[in-house]
Amino acid sequence: MNTVSSYPPIKVGILGLGTVGGGVTRVLARNASEISRRAGRDILITHAAARNLDSTTANTTGIKLTQEGLEVVDDPEVSIIIELMGGYEPARSLVLRALANGKHVVTANKALIANHGNEIFAAARDAGMMVGFEAAVAGGIPIIKAIREGLAGNHLEWVMGIINGTANFILSEMRGKGRNFPDVLAEAQKLGYAEADPTLDIEGIDAAHKLTILASIAFGIPLQFDKVYIEGISRITRDDVANATKLGYRIKHLGIARRDEHGVQLRVHPTLIPQRQLLAHVNGVMNAVLVKGDAVGQNLFYGAGAGAEPTASAVVADIIDVVRTLTTDPENRVPHLAFQPDALSDLPVVPMDEIETACYLRLLALDRPGVLADITRILADCGIGIEAFMQKEAPATASVVPVVLLTNPVKEQRMNQAIAALEALDSIRAPVMRIRLDYLESD
Amino acid sequence: MNTVSSYPPIKVGILGLGTVGGGVTRVLARNASEISRRAGRDILITHAAARNLDSTTANTTGIKLTQEGLEVVDDPEVSIIIELMGGYEPARSLVLRALANGKHVVTANKALIANHGNEIFAAARDAGMMVGFEAAVAGGIPIIKAIREGLAGNHLEWVMGIINGTANFILSEMRGKGRNFPDVLAEAQKLGYAEADPTLDIEGIDAAHKLTILASIAFGIPLQFDKVYIEGISRITRDDVANATKLGYRIKHLGIARRDEHGVQLRVHPTLIPQRQLLAHVNGVMNAVLVKGDAVGQNLFYGAGAGAEPTASAVVADIIDVVRTLTTDPENRVPHLAFQPDALSDLPVVPMDEIETACYLRLLALDRPGVLADITRILADCGIGIEAFMQKEAPATASVVPVVLLTNPVKEQRMNQAIAALEALDSIRAPVMRIRLDYLESD
Repeated sequence: MNTVSSYPPIKVGILGLGTVGGGVTRVLARNASEISRRAGRDILITHAAARNLDSTTANTTGIKLTQEGLEVVDDPEVSIIIELMGGYEPARSLVLRALANGKHVVTANKALIANHGNEIFAAARDAGMMVGFEAAVAGGIPIIKAIREGLAGNHLEWVMGIINGTANFILSEMRGKGRNFPDVLAEAQKLGYAEADPTLDIEGIDAAHKLTILASIAFGIPLQFDKVYIEGISRITRDDVANATKLGYRIKHLGIARRDEHGVQLRVHPTLIPQRQLLAHVNGVMNAVLVKGDAVGQNLFYGAGAGAEPTASAVVADIIDVVRTLTTDPENRVPHLAFQPDALSDLPVVPMDEIETACYLRLLALDRPGVLADITRILADCGIGIEAFMQKEAPATASVVPVVLLTNPVKEQRMNQAIAALEALDSIRAPVMRIRLDYLESD
Repeated sequence: MNTVSSYPPIKVGILGLGTVGGGVTRVLARNASEISRRAGRDILITHAAARNLDSTTANTTGIKLTQEGLEVVDDPEVSIIIELMGGYEPARSLVLRALANGKHVVTANKALIANHGNEIFAAARDAGMMVGFEAAVAGGIPIIKAIREGLAGNHLEWVMGIINGTANFILSEMRGKGRNFPDVLAEAQKLGYAEADPTLDIEGIDAAHKLTILASIAFGIPLQFDKVYIEGISRITRDDVANATKLGYRIKHLGIARRDEHGVQLRVHPTLIPQRQLLAHVNGVMNAVLVKGDAVGQNLFYGAGAGAEPTASAVVADIIDVVRTLTTDPENRVPHLAFQPDALSDLPVVPMDEIETACYLRLLALDRPGVLADITRILADCGIGIEAFMQKEAPATASVVPVVLLTNPVKEQRMNQAIAALEALDSIRAPVMRIRLDYLESD
């Protein structure tokens, strides 16, 4: 260990030695000398808890091991607790106890922060402690730091991002190789990109956890996971992906937080992005977050959104940050949600019905005269204009033909009415597929 | 002003009310409430110096104005000095005096930091003061913060970026519209993207200033502007741009800092980048920096690299950072060059002759038998392999034909020998155009 300072080492306890925990031990050991040269002191993991101590890939040299998280959290030698267990309990109780014990916390647990962050940050404030959660959003990309500190001079207008690598991998493969959703999902599971139960990733819940956090630090609002509109990618077909390409777009699964005149929009859904946008070229398991500030304009942050070492990169950065502010009085530290806790805003979350987006619609229509007239009449009755129209040659044997439309921007509620009316037609086979378009300002 | 804290306001003095100075006054005024809610106190510009007080677009409400920088630097009420004058003197003297007076400094002056940063940071350390310089590199992109703090757990392997917006605008226009360099330069000057004397931008000096800073904070080495290899874009022709496109590449003007087994490479030159890379899609005046860390993998940071308000965004973020660490003991602040000042490395800068890159070569050859044989013989004699070859149909009336080659990776010295030998041929019209290729690891 190459100590460059007279400061004593900082002792760290770790809860969870799974994939990310293993990554943290390896990165801290491998880069010990550079990390000391940056932080001005050594950072040592001295105590770790894991359910299964035999199966870990962690570098456990010099670390006291236990199966009991409480032992680590109550260890008087440890100044910082790294929570990498995942899930709500016992993670929540251990984090709260660590704070009450006068220990700082670093966590990668997005579900915990999105759902219990308000409680945890209040407890941290009472105790004068810090909770670092850079690793909870977009893995190794320092997006929390960028928004909370790097763009702190801005009035932020919106944040949107590809914040689930599994969903982005699936959509990228569907596009690149013309494959269908179930095939690619099976492959993603084989490659270890998707869990045995992929619901959290493909139904947008994981992305909604991250969006909840991004929205809070961008706009200075409390964490409100339960108000996020959530739609996953499991209904997207190979044809949708190919149609989008033909129309000059890519389908990406986005988390979007945007201010409008009514409050804050919080939504996660598949989105058509114009091909010329940089965000459209983010492929595979990579993540990217685009932030719009009134002064800075658009900033994009791109990198690996998951994986042992990218996530460890964020955890270690948080540890160094905590170490640096140990002697700062708590009032002058960066506030957890970017804004001072007594200066959070009560901006309302806009109901999805009130949000206006353009839409891609794919309908399966019976191949008979008058169908198109029916479709266009229903849309016109709802005040919906058509921006583009695409009808595929039907195979000679088919009785239905796919009809694809791009509409002009329209309120969700009105589009829902139009879709219900379309699905009520005898000549349309339900369900109608709808994918929203988000026009980013020109790049 | 919406004060949310009992802390007294921080008073700031500003040197220079030109484009960026005007932007800083406007952003601080417009976003005063949000900035206070983040920083926990108000930030007020109380004193400003400018050469020409009549022509400024700054919001000078409530600001004491002077033409004498020394008055601001010596104002006992002011805690932070914002240096936005540009150039070396009197900026350097005023910054040193501000530090000696016990004031923190925030600057956007890349030339000053690249050339006099070692002296200025030593003075800041002696005085226990901070110098913020986020705005000196890549405008509004918080790249200094990302590298110095966000990626602090990594052993950084390389940094490469599009860090001059003027050069990137020119290359983007040449590609997009098939125009020639002098035309586009003239347009860039008309649009205000390029100065009347565009040398700093198009000959790579501005990019080298920024690269000097990036390399220091990435690798923990002193600032060494005089050791950067610098090549601009003024010799690139419309044909080079078109040839690169045909071969699957884009030409970008990059700053590259890379560790290799001999030390650190520091170089600024036009570079062919594979079209599939995200960096290849960064167009117009935008900047982007790609960073490779051993844990995090590749991170890309993209945004406006210049302009009044993007630069102001970085300046204001630095002010807030300084405000937050006013009560931190100096030893625990983020070190100016990311590593503790007594832990900088003496890694040598690798001489350009020793650096290995693949190359694009464009030769004008007399249209006669045996020329190609001569060319391939010379390359073979120098041990240089050919990866791709392109010969254009010569117009019937032309006596010379362009020959385009991509070579395998080869040391600069050997390529220089080969080019000298090629140019010595009767059948080749000098000079041979050479543009380096940088294979980024797969993305």
